[in-house]
Amino acid sequence: MSKSVNAVGWAARDPSGVLSPFKFSRPAAAPRDVHFKVLYCGICHSDLHTIKNEWGNAHYPVVPGHEIVGVVTAVGPSVTKFSPGDKVGVGCLVNSCRNCDQCAAHLQNYCPNLVLTYNTVLPDASVTYGGYSDVMGADEDFLIRWPDNLPMDKGAPLLCAGITTYSPLRYFGLDQPGLSLGVVGLGGLGHVAVKLAKAFGLNVTVISTSDGKREEALGKLGADAFLISRDAAGMETAAGTLDGIIDTVSAQHALPPLLGLLKPHGKLILVGAPEKPLELPAFPLIMGRKTVAGSMIGGIKETQEMIDFAAKHGIVADVEIIPIDYVNTAMERLAKADVKYRFVIDVGNTLKAE
Amino acid sequence: MSKSVNAVGWAARDPSGVLSPFKFSRPAAAPRDVHFKVLYCGICHSDLHTIKNEWGNAHYPVVPGHEIVGVVTAVGPSVTKFSPGDKVGVGCLVNSCRNCDQCAAHLQNYCPNLVLTYNTVLPDASVTYGGYSDVMGADEDFLIRWPDNLPMDKGAPLLCAGITTYSPLRYFGLDQPGLSLGVVGLGGLGHVAVKLAKAFGLNVTVISTSDGKREEALGKLGADAFLISRDAAGMETAAGTLDGIIDTVSAQHALPPLLGLLKPHGKLILVGAPEKPLELPAFPLIMGRKTVAGSMIGGIKETQEMIDFAAKHGIVADVEIIPIDYVNTAMERLAKADVKYRFVIDVGNTLKAE
Repeated sequence: MSKSVNAVGWAARDPSGVLSPFKFSRPAAAPRDVHFKVLYCGICHSDLHTIKNEWGNAHYPVVPGHEIVGVVTAVGPSVTKFSPGDKVGVGCLVNSCRNCDQCAAHLQNYCPNLVLTYNTVLPDASVTYGGYSDVMGADEDFLIRWPDNLPMDKGAPLLCAGITTYSPLRYFGLDQPGLSLGVVGLGGLGHVAVKLAKAFGLNVTVISTSDGKREEALGKLGADAFLISRDAAGMETAAGTLDGIIDTVSAQHALPPLLGLLKPHGKLILVGAPEKPLELPAFPLIMGRKTVAGSMIGGIKETQEMIDFAAKHGIVADVEIIPIDYVNTAMERLAKADVKYRFVIDVGNTLKAE
Repeated sequence: MSKSVNAVGWAARDPSGVLSPFKFSRPAAAPRDVHFKVLYCGICHSDLHTIKNEWGNAHYPVVPGHEIVGVVTAVGPSVTKFSPGDKVGVGCLVNSCRNCDQCAAHLQNYCPNLVLTYNTVLPDASVTYGGYSDVMGADEDFLIRWPDNLPMDKGAPLLCAGITTYSPLRYFGLDQPGLSLGVVGLGGLGHVAVKLAKAFGLNVTVISTSDGKREEALGKLGADAFLISRDAAGMETAAGTLDGIIDTVSAQHALPPLLGLLKPHGKLILVGAPEKPLELPAFPLIMGRKTVAGSMIGGIKETQEMIDFAAKHGIVADVEIIPIDYVNTAMERLAKADVKYRFVIDVGNTLKAE
């Protein structure tokens, strides 16, 4: 582990976003680093935004992927928590400053100097590379211990989609049995939010723009109710019935109908990020002491808690497993929301070093 | 107390908002009603909005006033808490349904059938009349016991301005010593918010559009810091330093600079209500798990708590005491924010029945 590690991945080289094989080196391992062979990596919508530079911050070449599960191959001399052969997961972050209030509170995800799993420029000017690659390494404090009874392929998306929805349910007190929760948007985030919320014992209403997902929501995912956001009569009937809403939609959309669904003191939590500002009327917020808030993934401790919760309750994502050479087609389909609900790359079996 | 009570007040008759003397009858007292002689009544900005029908809901004639302090003159046979001679206060509400979840939780202010002190149409088609009048009556459950050591004239505005800012400080956890609070707008609400926050032991930063209120904020009101919202450099220096903000501004204004002042997990609480929607960018909310919420006055139990807190800490509003026949001039000056910081009508000495 004393020298850099050869790796092969798939990278985007420019805003076309087209991914192709890319050879690179992982940094020499630090004493507390764990190296592992990547077996599965989920495809998050953030990956698509980044490879196409839609957020304007891409550092090419970009090797995306932050829903990564694998098996430990080697550990540094100071590693105490993991051994070769252990199953591990890596989510959206691989390091943080470790000295700030956020890090002290196990909220590394809000550390101003957090290091994202890919596309973060490090002090030495190198850029982090993600999980669309055969091998990875990370400090042991940023690894998740993978439960034996949680499938690695279907579980991988929990490392982003799961924690992104689990954390606000917990932080905003929307994890108490009997509460009523709305989930807006039934994609990668939304379908996991429904499953987590049901495991917390909530009454879950899926809110969608069209009737097409009704059967999926009620029949397959176990939601209790389904609302079409453009159905004014249905929305009116449901007004004032929800304690909280998890809003996963990243397209522009209207907040007032959602605020109307909330009870007094209800909370609308944004986890999808529309590019342009949303219109926020002050009156409904004030009249009902309502909250609009945001939430971004979660810290490592809470991610482990979420993974253990998922294992206990048998929660996995609904996935379509693909080989690495299908990834560009998968991105095109993801852009059209043509997936139920998450692509997961079978890295271990299909991405081979030459 | 068995028949209706003759009263005289000042009322607006149309959207000109001009107030003039108005004779009317208060309803016959119910067994649990307390009648009292009005001594002082504050002028809230809501009064101005309503008499000019700026919210589109005025039921003329409008007798405004919901910051009312007086002395009990008579009590119904079932009244147990008050006796003639007691000092009492009435704020923004005089009744509610008493059967809903909000009422059960002492949050009558969020009851869907709350009865406002003025301009609420009752089931018998009568309209409630407020404190710009010589006598009033209300159910004893909606009266505040006035502490002997709290001045009635300077204390009256606390019944709206005080509870409007006290309640969110308590509910949103912004009442812990050592936290840093921003107060946006130094008017009737804002100057009381500063005093309450200092009594809670907070570090208080006043945020204003111009430098004109710096001396008042720091010297007279005891704020710890002063920021000009248009001073980009000053706002940048203060970025990420506040745990919460009480935003009292009802004019259109930009939220992103305020969100930038918040620490991660910080809370921006709107108590002023701009007419048009505000622009809310999702990214800063999500990246810092920040909250934008609203809050509207408070319940009766909490209003009593606030009044007792004010008495204990010697908190009153800064007021300009006026006779009733100055009220139209006062409204013109209020529209120009030309008052430091609240007009209070000396009803007891200047409003006489013919």
